[in-house]
This record gives sequence, structure tokens and C-alpha cells, in this order.
Amino acid sequence: MNMKRIAAEYAVQYIEDGMKVGLGTGSTAYWAIQKIGERIKEGLSIQAVATSKASERQAMELGIPIIPFHEIDGLDLTIDGADEVDLDLHLIKGGGGALLREKIVAHHSKRLIIVADERKLVHTLGQFPLPVEVVPFAVEWTLNALQRLGCRTQLRTDEEQLFITDNGNYIVDCNFGTISAPLKLHNEILNIPGVVDNGLFIGRADLAVIAHYDGIVEVLKRK
Amino acid sequence: MNMKRIAAEYAVQYIEDGMKVGLGTGSTAYWAIQKIGERIKEGLSIQAVATSKASERQAMELGIPIIPFHEIDGLDLTIDGADEVDLDLHLIKGGGGALLREKIVAHHSKRLIIVADERKLVHTLGQFPLPVEVVPFAVEWTLNALQRLGCRTQLRTDEEQLFITDNGNYIVDCNFGTISAPLKLHNEILNIPGVVDNGLFIGRADLAVIAHYDGIVEVLKRK
Repeated sequence: MNMKRIAAEYAVQYIEDGMKVGLGTGSTAYWAIQKIGERIKEGLSIQAVATSKASERQAMELGIPIIPFHEIDGLDLTIDGADEVDLDLHLIKGGGGALLREKIVAHHSKRLIIVADERKLVHTLGQFPLPVEVVPFAVEWTLNALQRLGCRTQLRTDEEQLFITDNGNYIVDCNFGTISAPLKLHNEILNIPGVVDNGLFIGRADLAVIAHYDGIVEVLKRK
Repeated sequence: MNMKRIAAEYAVQYIEDGMKVGLGTGSTAYWAIQKIGERIKEGLSIQAVATSKASERQAMELGIPIIPFHEIDGLDLTIDGADEVDLDLHLIKGGGGALLREKIVAHHSKRLIIVADERKLVHTLGQFPLPVEVVPFAVEWTLNALQRLGCRTQLRTDEEQLFITDNGNYIVDCNFGTISAPLKLHNEILNIPGVVDNGLFIGRADLAVIAHYDGIVEVLKRK
């Protein structure tokens, strides 16, 4: 029984005819896109944007209409994965390096549904290193400022080269261990000049569909 | 009587032997760098970083030692200009397009001294359009989000091309008219994904040296 697939298919029920839909990225979002493709073949009519090249390609192969961002004002619904989800539906995202694109899509969606497996569900965020996108200029100073917030920092690399985002920036993985006050930390990080954005998504997700490996799909609503 | 020069030279008195100094940009900061050059010839020993290529070039021609950002942890003192200064020493900066570099330098300086002429001193910020640096991705959505904060927006151009910052981003000039709650606005703008930073400098300046054209140099301290 593929629990990720079952959770993803549950989330896709929320998509209605005529909606503008954001397509997420990752191993659970993959199954959501597959299911949307099936529904398109059954006659569903939507317009979609994708948070990654991989999801865009998958969608196009399935016949899901992808439209440019500048042709629409925003989205009705986005279905995306997460690296960590807490019980308030605060998230850490961006493990794949596209946190800014994911955050822009989420910010401009009326609803955000997170699909993930049980390993992503946590009581307190911070076990997963928080990705922070930073401009290359004076990056050592930005690393120091991040460390002063109480984390160990690691500039992300890809085959021994510094990882470069779609926006030409670096990713710093910030290991906090536990993040006890996510909103406060989010704003402190944003206030460091040199930081473009960070992987904390606070109060953005409306619903989290969690696949448990014992066969249960748990649906958490934001309070 | 060159009042900008007199104000700039007043500010340079705060530089002491052995300091690490940030060199600002603009018509008043120009005179500060000239004066620092004179003091170097008289034996002053400092290390400097510059907020622009122009200031870096001017400094090097004057024999002011310019060092790479990564060789130092931060600065003792920065002397820079501003586009607007209010009586709380909140600032709008970035008219020249280098707001992020200016903000990084200011953030990592123990003290920030602003030099400006009287036309920059205002009761309420906002007459000068606030520059906001944004990533090119989905820029129409970011413009919409900025407009919802109550401004008219204009993507900055340079000879009919979109202006590109040193970091590969765009500048949006946001015309608010009056900014009654600068700290609140600053945080609202930072919370828009797609925004890299903005030209509001809140609670950063320690001293503003204002050149009045009637011959007075006014020194404002942060309360």
C-alpha cells in the first residue's frame, strides 16, 4: 500500500473545476500531480503553475495545462510537500533548494494543502536544518549573523561546488536543533540584510494530509 | 561655502586610528572620503570597505586601504548618505540602487553616521519613493503584494532596460507619499516573498550630520 499516494490522492479531492492550482515538488507531491493528470483525462479543467522544473515537466507530460505566472494574479489552491510539519501547521520547506519559488507560490494561493508522510510530522520544528537563501555578497557576514541566532551553519554544496539557486543565490542550511519560537525566528532571519528568504512557512498551510505507514491518512486543519 | 563638505568633514572626526570603516556613496559621502584621504596622508591608519564601486575607486586613488569583506568580521564605523532622514533617524536609502550592499555594511557597523544636506531631513518619510529590491521570478505578483501595502509601484529602468542590481535583481520604487509607521511597513515588506530587502533603515543610524545652507551644521543623535 503506497501511503504517500493515498495521502496525495486525498488532497487532490480539493481541486475543483476552473481552479488555478499550484503544483508542488517532492515524492508525495509527485503522486498528487499524477492524480491531477488522471482527473484532467476525465474532464477536469484547471490552469496550473509549478514550483520546480521537474513538476512542470511531469505536469506537461500528463496534459495538465501550465501557464506563465504573469498571466494570472494568484492561485486558488496549492498542493505541496514539506520537510517538517508541526501541529500548528508551521513548516520547514526548501530542502530541495527552491524555497523562494515555493514560498511565492504559497503566499499567492488562497489555500495551501501540505502532503507528507509521517516522518515529516514533528512536535517542534528544527531537527531538519532550516534552509536560508542568501545573496553571495559578503556572505561570511551573513553566516555570522545567522550563527548569532543560535545555529550551526553550512553553506550548501553540490558536487563540491557551492549550490546556486534559480535566483543566483546561495543556500545556508541552519541547524537549530529545536525552534521553539518559529514566528520570532522567521522575522529575525528576515531582518538580516543579505538574507533573501528562509524555509519557515508560518501560518500559511491550511491543511496537512499526513500518510502514516500503518494505513491511516491523518488530516490536520490549522486552528 | 560648501556645506556638504563641512558636514562630511565634521563626521570624519569620529574616525580613530586602527578603526575598520565603511565608506558610503553619494555627493556628501564623497567629501567624507576626500577628508579621510587627507587624514591618511597625515598618518591615520584604518582599513576600509566601500558600498559602491565609485567610492572604492575614489578611496583607492586617495590611498585609503580597501580590504575584502571576508577578511574582517565587521566595522567600527560607517559614514554614508541617505535619501531621507526623519527626526528619529529612520532613513530611506537606496536611491542609487545599492540598498542591499549599503544595508549589509550598516548592519555590521558598530556605529552609523549619516551625512546629508537639509533637503534630505523630513518630518515623515515617504516623499522619496522607497526602493525595494525584488527577485525577477514572478515579479508581477510581488508588485501586486507591494501595492496592497498602499503604494504606487514603478519597476526601475535604466535607458529603457530594466535596472539590474549587483545581485541580479530588480528595483521597485514604491511611492507611499507618507510612511506613518516605518518599522511596521519595513516588516510587512520583508514578509513578502520575492522581496530581497528594502530601503528603510530603522533604528540603525546613531548620528545624522545635516548641512544647512545658511551655514549651520546640525547634529542629530538617536534618542
